[in-house]
Amino acid sequence: MQQSGNEENFMQPLAYRNIDKHLPVLPPKGEIYDECGVFGLYKTDGDEELNGISITHDALLGLQHRGQESAGIAVNNNGEFSTVKDVGMVYSALSEKALEDLPDGKIVIGHVRYTPLNLLDSSGTQPLIIRYIYGALGICHNGALTNFKELKDKLEQGGAIFQSYSDAEMIAYIIAEQRLHAPSIEDAIIKTMHKLRGAYSLVVSSPNKLIAVRDPYGFRPLCLGKIGNSYCFASESCVFQSVGAEFIRDICPGEIVVVDSKGINSYFAYEQNAENKTSLCMFEYVYIARPDSVIDGISVYNARKRAGELLYLEHPVDADMVCGVPDSGLDAAQGYAAASKIPYGIAFIKNKYIARMVSMPQKEKKKRLLNTKLTALAANVKGKRIVIIDDSIVRGETSKHIVTLLKNAGAKEVHMRISSPPFLHACYFGVDVKNEDELIAKRMNTQQIAEYLGVDSLGYLSCESLNLIAQGAKVGFCDACFSGKYPLEIPKEIFVDKFSEKIRFTEK
Amino acid sequence: MQQSGNEENFMQPLAYRNIDKHLPVLPPKGEIYDECGVFGLYKTDGDEELNGISITHDALLGLQHRGQESAGIAVNNNGEFSTVKDVGMVYSALSEKALEDLPDGKIVIGHVRYTPLNLLDSSGTQPLIIRYIYGALGICHNGALTNFKELKDKLEQGGAIFQSYSDAEMIAYIIAEQRLHAPSIEDAIIKTMHKLRGAYSLVVSSPNKLIAVRDPYGFRPLCLGKIGNSYCFASESCVFQSVGAEFIRDICPGEIVVVDSKGINSYFAYEQNAENKTSLCMFEYVYIARPDSVIDGISVYNARKRAGELLYLEHPVDADMVCGVPDSGLDAAQGYAAASKIPYGIAFIKNKYIARMVSMPQKEKKKRLLNTKLTALAANVKGKRIVIIDDSIVRGETSKHIVTLLKNAGAKEVHMRISSPPFLHACYFGVDVKNEDELIAKRMNTQQIAEYLGVDSLGYLSCESLNLIAQGAKVGFCDACFSGKYPLEIPKEIFVDKFSEKIRFTEK
Amino acid sequence: MQQSGNEENFMQPLAYRNIDKHLPVLPPKGEIYDECGVFGLYKTDGDEELNGISITHDALLGLQHRGQESAGIAVNNNGEFSTVKDVGMVYSALSEKALEDLPDGKIVIGHVRYTPLNLLDSSGTQPLIIRYIYGALGICHNGALTNFKELKDKLEQGGAIFQSYSDAEMIAYIIAEQRLHAPSIEDAIIKTMHKLRGAYSLVVSSPNKLIAVRDPYGFRPLCLGKIGNSYCFASESCVFQSVGAEFIRDICPGEIVVVDSKGINSYFAYEQNAENKTSLCMFEYVYIARPDSVIDGISVYNARKRAGELLYLEHPVDADMVCGVPDSGLDAAQGYAAASKIPYGIAFIKNKYIARMVSMPQKEKKKRLLNTKLTALAANVKGKRIVIIDDSIVRGETSKHIVTLLKNAGAKEVHMRISSPPFLHACYFGVDVKNEDELIAKRMNTQQIAEYLGVDSLGYLSCESLNLIAQGAKVGFCDACFSGKYPLEIPKEIFVDKFSEKIRFTEK
Amino acid sequence: MQQSGNEENFMQPLAYRNIDKHLPVLPPKGEIYDECGVFGLYKTDGDEELNGISITHDALLGLQHRGQESAGIAVNNNGEFSTVKDVGMVYSALSEKALEDLPDGKIVIGHVRYTPLNLLDSSGTQPLIIRYIYGALGICHNGALTNFKELKDKLEQGGAIFQSYSDAEMIAYIIAEQRLHAPSIEDAIIKTMHKLRGAYSLVVSSPNKLIAVRDPYGFRPLCLGKIGNSYCFASESCVFQSVGAEFIRDICPGEIVVVDSKGINSYFAYEQNAENKTSLCMFEYVYIARPDSVIDGISVYNARKRAGELLYLEHPVDADMVCGVPDSGLDAAQGYAAASKIPYGIAFIKNKYIARMVSMPQKEKKKRLLNTKLTALAANVKGKRIVIIDDSIVRGETSKHIVTLLKNAGAKEVHMRISSPPFLHACYFGVDVKNEDELIAKRMNTQQIAEYLGVDSLGYLSCESLNLIAQGAKVGFCDACFSGKYPLEIPKEIFVDKFSEKIRFTEK
Repeated sequence: MQQSGNEENFMQPLAYRNIDKHLPVLPPKGEIYDECGVFGLYKTDGDEELNGISITHDALLGLQHRGQESAGIAVNNNGEFSTVKDVGMVYSALSEKALEDLPDGKIVIGHVRYTPLNLLDSSGTQPLIIRYIYGALGICHNGALTNFKELKDKLEQGGAIFQSYSDAEMIAYIIAEQRLHAPSIEDAIIKTMHKLRGAYSLVVSSPNKLIAVRDPYGFRPLCLGKIGNSYCFASESCVFQSVGAEFIRDICPGEIVVVDSKGINSYFAYEQNAENKTSLCMFEYVYIARPDSVIDGISVYNARKRAGELLYLEHPVDADMVCGVPDSGLDAAQGYAAASKIPYGIAFIKNKYIARMVSMPQKEKKKRLLNTKLTALAANVKGKRIVIIDDSIVRGETSKHIVTLLKNAGAKEVHMRISSPPFLHACYFGVDVKNEDELIAKRMNTQQIAEYLGVDSLGYLSCESLNLIAQGAKVGFCDACFSGKYPLEIPKEIFVDKFSEKIRFTEK
Repeated sequence: MQQSGNEENFMQPLAYRNIDKHLPVLPPKGEIYDECGVFGLYKTDGDEELNGISITHDALLGLQHRGQESAGIAVNNNGEFSTVKDVGMVYSALSEKALEDLPDGKIVIGHVRYTPLNLLDSSGTQPLIIRYIYGALGICHNGALTNFKELKDKLEQGGAIFQSYSDAEMIAYIIAEQRLHAPSIEDAIIKTMHKLRGAYSLVVSSPNKLIAVRDPYGFRPLCLGKIGNSYCFASESCVFQSVGAEFIRDICPGEIVVVDSKGINSYFAYEQNAENKTSLCMFEYVYIARPDSVIDGISVYNARKRAGELLYLEHPVDADMVCGVPDSGLDAAQGYAAASKIPYGIAFIKNKYIARMVSMPQKEKKKRLLNTKLTALAANVKGKRIVIIDDSIVRGETSKHIVTLLKNAGAKEVHMRISSPPFLHACYFGVDVKNEDELIAKRMNTQQIAEYLGVDSLGYLSCESLNLIAQGAKVGFCDACFSGKYPLEIPKEIFVDKFSEKIRFTEK
Repeated sequence: MQQSGNEENFMQPLAYRNIDKHLPVLPPKGEIYDECGVFGLYKTDGDEELNGISITHDALLGLQHRGQESAGIAVNNNGEFSTVKDVGMVYSALSEKALEDLPDGKIVIGHVRYTPLNLLDSSGTQPLIIRYIYGALGICHNGALTNFKELKDKLEQGGAIFQSYSDAEMIAYIIAEQRLHAPSIEDAIIKTMHKLRGAYSLVVSSPNKLIAVRDPYGFRPLCLGKIGNSYCFASESCVFQSVGAEFIRDICPGEIVVVDSKGINSYFAYEQNAENKTSLCMFEYVYIARPDSVIDGISVYNARKRAGELLYLEHPVDADMVCGVPDSGLDAAQGYAAASKIPYGIAFIKNKYIARMVSMPQKEKKKRLLNTKLTALAANVKGKRIVIIDDSIVRGETSKHIVTLLKNAGAKEVHMRISSPPFLHACYFGVDVKNEDELIAKRMNTQQIAEYLGVDSLGYLSCESLNLIAQGAKVGFCDACFSGKYPLEIPKEIFVDKFSEKIRFTEK
Repeated sequence: MQQSGNEENFMQPLAYRNIDKHLPVLPPKGEIYDECGVFGLYKTDGDEELNGISITHDALLGLQHRGQESAGIAVNNNGEFSTVKDVGMVYSALSEKALEDLPDGKIVIGHVRYTPLNLLDSSGTQPLIIRYIYGALGICHNGALTNFKELKDKLEQGGAIFQSYSDAEMIAYIIAEQRLHAPSIEDAIIKTMHKLRGAYSLVVSSPNKLIAVRDPYGFRPLCLGKIGNSYCFASESCVFQSVGAEFIRDICPGEIVVVDSKGINSYFAYEQNAENKTSLCMFEYVYIARPDSVIDGISVYNARKRAGELLYLEHPVDADMVCGVPDSGLDAAQGYAAASKIPYGIAFIKNKYIARMVSMPQKEKKKRLLNTKLTALAANVKGKRIVIIDDSIVRGETSKHIVTLLKNAGAKEVHMRISSPPFLHACYFGVDVKNEDELIAKRMNTQQIAEYLGVDSLGYLSCESLNLIAQGAKVGFCDACFSGKYPLEIPKEIFVDKFSEKIRFTEK
């Protein structure tokens, strides 16, 4: 790990550890990254035959789309934690041999991570296991704290040391601190929630309890399932089908749910939601979550299809075929096709096999990755007027490549439709946008983007329509990345801290 | 490698070598396996800047669906061959470091392999490089010889030894033998073609030439492309788009095409096709090839879509949604939807991330693989009458699982339609069917299969319709796996040789 | 890592991480283990061409005998730390690729570790890099704190969390705490030394300084060298020859030496040594250190040879050949031979190649390891009366095996001589003895041991003689493991903490 | 593998395959390389509990000094062969998991290889398993054929193809050919021996038999042992002690020993030794074999010690200490010390831990390897007149480094003594000398070498004395590398074939 020598600089890239040479170079999933998936299982007495490690492994596989940079599983056997975790995807980080060597335990928690800094770094792999005055804690976190710097400064002034400066390590510190004056772990976590600001969906294991926590805004999803008589928590409901669990319900914003030998209990950290305003991330519906998940009452697939329908209403066009960019544009394309009555069709073949690239200049490598990942289905494209649907445009490079593929394949017209509004603002709640300045919509208006991409027309979904796609959800939404309206104040320093130039530290 | 001690037994499983522990357990692609993909590039003078190794690597990535058990690249630098090959998929077998260490060369050939015996074995990895009286030869093969045993017996009676008993090794032996009495390598290969029976699409590199060969029946595809002024050969045209090549034409059945410093030349091994009967494998259109490939003049995507249309004509049904089993049923589903006017929709989400399974009994493992690989999209399935399209049913287990997923997701009716006829007969030309006895269609009639699967109705495409899906192709077809009509006689012993019980060898 | 859920239990085995499958099973070096080696280099301006990473790598290779369970290197480039570290030996943990990817920097520190718990665990690999209010710190530690539990309890009562509960993490915490009220890092370290009890030889890198620290007792060695105009610190002087450095001097007990851009400075944390009593570990001379090291003025080789001479004076015997058990008994055997005039000879061949054992019951595995590691040289042993010298007897099993080998090889008599006194007491200062109860000398007297081993006679060096082997050293000695006279009081709880039965933690 | 395109060129470097990145860079053992070790076990009925794979693994570990470039084990289970083999040392090539996956079998054979071309190449790893008209054969070979080219030319003219052009592949071809006209495998092997010229110690497994073969000159050692009621063969007797076997006797030159279910039988391929002249390689005694082996009746240790004694008689000197260069000079040093009455002492510490070098220019890397591998023990060297014994000088670079280390450590005088004559001639029987032109003794006389090395005196053992060191052996000797007297005629072409410039192949 590379760690900077100055507090202004703690979020700088945490660089290379002894990286497994067998890790393939992953083709970028896209240009926007979600951050982390969490899972936890508490095996109720009588369910001993459940293979908790297998279940957690399979759940992480089903959450892999939420984080491909590290994966980990921790087993809690009556207060003793055993962990397997490493950088890499599930198949690589969680080797069969290592999982076999794990002891069994009543509680198993798991995590997949995406780091905003895009470097393979083992120092922040989760589950994070710490020991403090009341024993051990295992923590899995999805989200992003906005008052990280403020918390850090205060802790450091008390002598704290950090080994990774991850949100999870910070949360562990706050829990340990609060636990000193709290009668129970539940109480300490409630006190902790009042200290934290920002997005956090947590799965925590104390020696005897499995605890799920969702921040009062409900930025990230978190839900409860049941396998036999045992309870489990997951970032997304899609995993329940894979592991044989039944979906019970979503964890509410501001709620903590505790499972232990006495059963399941729920607490709320706030009288009501602090400001009566919940704000689930709209981007979960648009892009991040798997279509077979249901979040806060709304099917992700249906939300995307609805986005496609609304997109047609806002930006109709006469064409021969509606296509989606695989995989993220396919669902909205179904909606656009249904609303427009234009036939839905396949324009692209996505190579599902992973690549490892021969060394070459970075730029050429990226181009090769795109070329080997996606090919146009000329036989179905040639001579047609195509409506091509994607979920978003970030820097515009990939979209431009897609348009070129269609044109080269003989498309007569290419009409691009985007199932979300222009992406204009940084996210501070757990979605990574590399650099606000690289956002094409910051630099160009829609007409200019259309010209840059070489499309015959371009249309984005409006913010108004976006807010309709998940109508009926049990929560409110955050659309700050599109609208700039942040549901809570963003400290000026958070940004400096995370993305500033490197500052050298000199001793006084 | 495990090698049997008796000539009756040479095709027995060639077992474990020092297997890379990092290899993930691959979820089975299906229950029918195609065998191998080939590629070759000859860099014409002036095209030195072409990175032949990168191009071949990317081409193999595009052919990965044709073989995931081993991958290899050989560079021929003025008669010196350097090879990187290993068991595993492209990303694992062809490491970045190893490819970087390869010298450059005018000729590069590559291969991905599927072995019918489903065991990781390094002894038969290709390209096979051999040295004989006229120097070295590199050989990449896709297909299966039917007179293997006859050729082997004869060679062994002359003192031959075999290190893998692969078709490629056999072909190398025959070329070496024929070359003794032939004035040129081209002539030796033509003589060799007259000795071989069965399916073979070859890319061969002699010290100074790159040679493509397609058997007189044209069982397997093989085509010619051009990058700059340089020529390349590939099993499927889909790779040309990825590597920046232009599709030129298919290699004809019985043709050999030779590229060397003097240019490109074509020869035919037979006056006419031996029996005026070419027989491209129909299963290439139905399942094996990538939809963005064009084989012998017909788009694979269009053939599949057409299969779906014909399937509707033969087996119409009243329903709410037409869905495909990902990925192989999606194209035919488009056709069925178009013909029936029933909306096309998405019923399944396929997890694209690869898994590694914690040890457990084999059966449970398979079930877990299915569960984590495919989930039903309940939001879109619930309450609907579903037409579900797949390309084939082999043993029926996977189909049964798919039907169960749909039912559990709330489908009101499930009508299964198969875009090919019942699979009834073994293939001897390069498609692997584990065991004829395991074919469900051998044991049950359609009604019984429908009951076994639990579907409301079941319909297969007829052989007559199948022969229409690629109408207009420049070749005839082999549909022996459906019809039992083999285009050439199958020696009785080939089967014994490959699938017989193990026989112990005792010295006399 | 396996981490226990209770503060009584923090030193329990930290179990499996994703262990590199390529790690060979290491044949046990012996039954007593030293703990860790440290190195640090500060490149003075003008010495830019020095390859600090290569030098540190080679130094760690030379310290490998001090720790084979993990290895790590950290580069400090103007306050930014980059680290490569992993479980395993130097060749395995520090891959060529990872080292190449490290940036260059003025300061490089390195560490090899042995953990007393004999489990491969990545959580405590060093260098430990932490960030605190004044930037980052890199810490490499050799030794053991005796007031660990006391410090831990106090810190936890202030809300501290621990991720590994290693001494290094504890020392980092104390430095961070002291730095809050200290004008400089040097001052903070001096204050820290007054908080720590026990053995610690540290190499610390602050953003701009390289600092070496030796506890006031001087339990573990630490010395200063010079390469060109640059300074380096190492656990043992033997590495200087390998890296082209000149030995300057030992760090004094209680001294801290600081190198920065202004040069090199020395400070003492105590007016005098606290109790005017220094206590370098005698076992460094007897077994741990490499014979080509010079510690506190005395050559390790000469000390061992002298031990052999004194051993003869105490336990003479009439014999045909004096032999050493490779490698640790060879030097003392030279001394015994010289003193006795009995010819020195070779009785054993040690296989230097490392093994990986096929799975089998643990006991049989150990026997096989011994069998493949050591063979008797029958041609030189047969018919002779042998004096066999070893450095110590711990459990007696290995010694018994050695005697058996000699007898089987035809030795007429076997006289065992041990170049140290009976090993009777646990060490709390950095040498690991598995379990005091397993010490054969605790359970049997010398006569009984001789009978158990099957030797014709057995003699140990006396404590009196032992204290003469390094006569003239600049420090006093600790011989507590032989004499039971600990140079400082051992808190009762340290032992409970580290070796107690596992205690489950239950929430109140 | 890199394979050349021309028959003149078949022995050119066979280059990189997908090399395991975890392989450490091996410090060169020296500058002369022996080639291969073989082992075989036949489990007699009743000895089923013997773990043949473990035994063979441990035996290969004991033969590791004979070859570190690849290792392999093959199990023959009633005619079915299963193999684990790969490039790398035993611990790396034979992974625990792979060995566990091997089936059990009556016959197990194993091999460690050194290739003269010093490149990691998997194509020639052994045991080589081939199938031919009479079933399968497993072959392990130690030696070198001198009529390889002649045999190859003839076979190729019959249409043979080669996949590695190793001696083992050639021997397999000849056996297969001879077997066509032989009533039994034994007879075929006897016929084969009459075709082969040069050095070969073979362990062969036919479906039901384990066969050991030693060429009529007996160039390489091969011996027979017994474990329980089962027989085993090994290159050196030293492994018997490790695997619990009893040494029975050496295989005689020209003998074949066959073990099968009926017992053990011996045959001789020649009436008498063809020319009544056996010629065991003297270099086995001088350097290659382990000192605890006994070859043809003579202890290797005793031979080396005797060499040291004779060396003193030929080149006495007045000095303070006699030292050996570890490890190969230690035994002769014992002899020199005994004869001269000068005390034997330790001058060097050899670091037994393996290294992996950070990339740097090759030359600097070699220097670093030497520096980290060997350090002078200054405390024992300073001010002394040293006699330093080594087994041979090849290029002189390592010797020069050793002398420099001694001088830097303060040696007053350095007298080098070499326990063999000047190395002047290439070996064609299995010992690799990189390049005759690089032999320092070819270019300089002894006085010049002494000056180049910077020693005060230099003395070699004479050929006459050399022939006395193994006096009483049951065989004659080959000392051609010293004397130039080759026991059989060396075809001119063998050398051209193996070391000639690369020749490009152009098709006619």
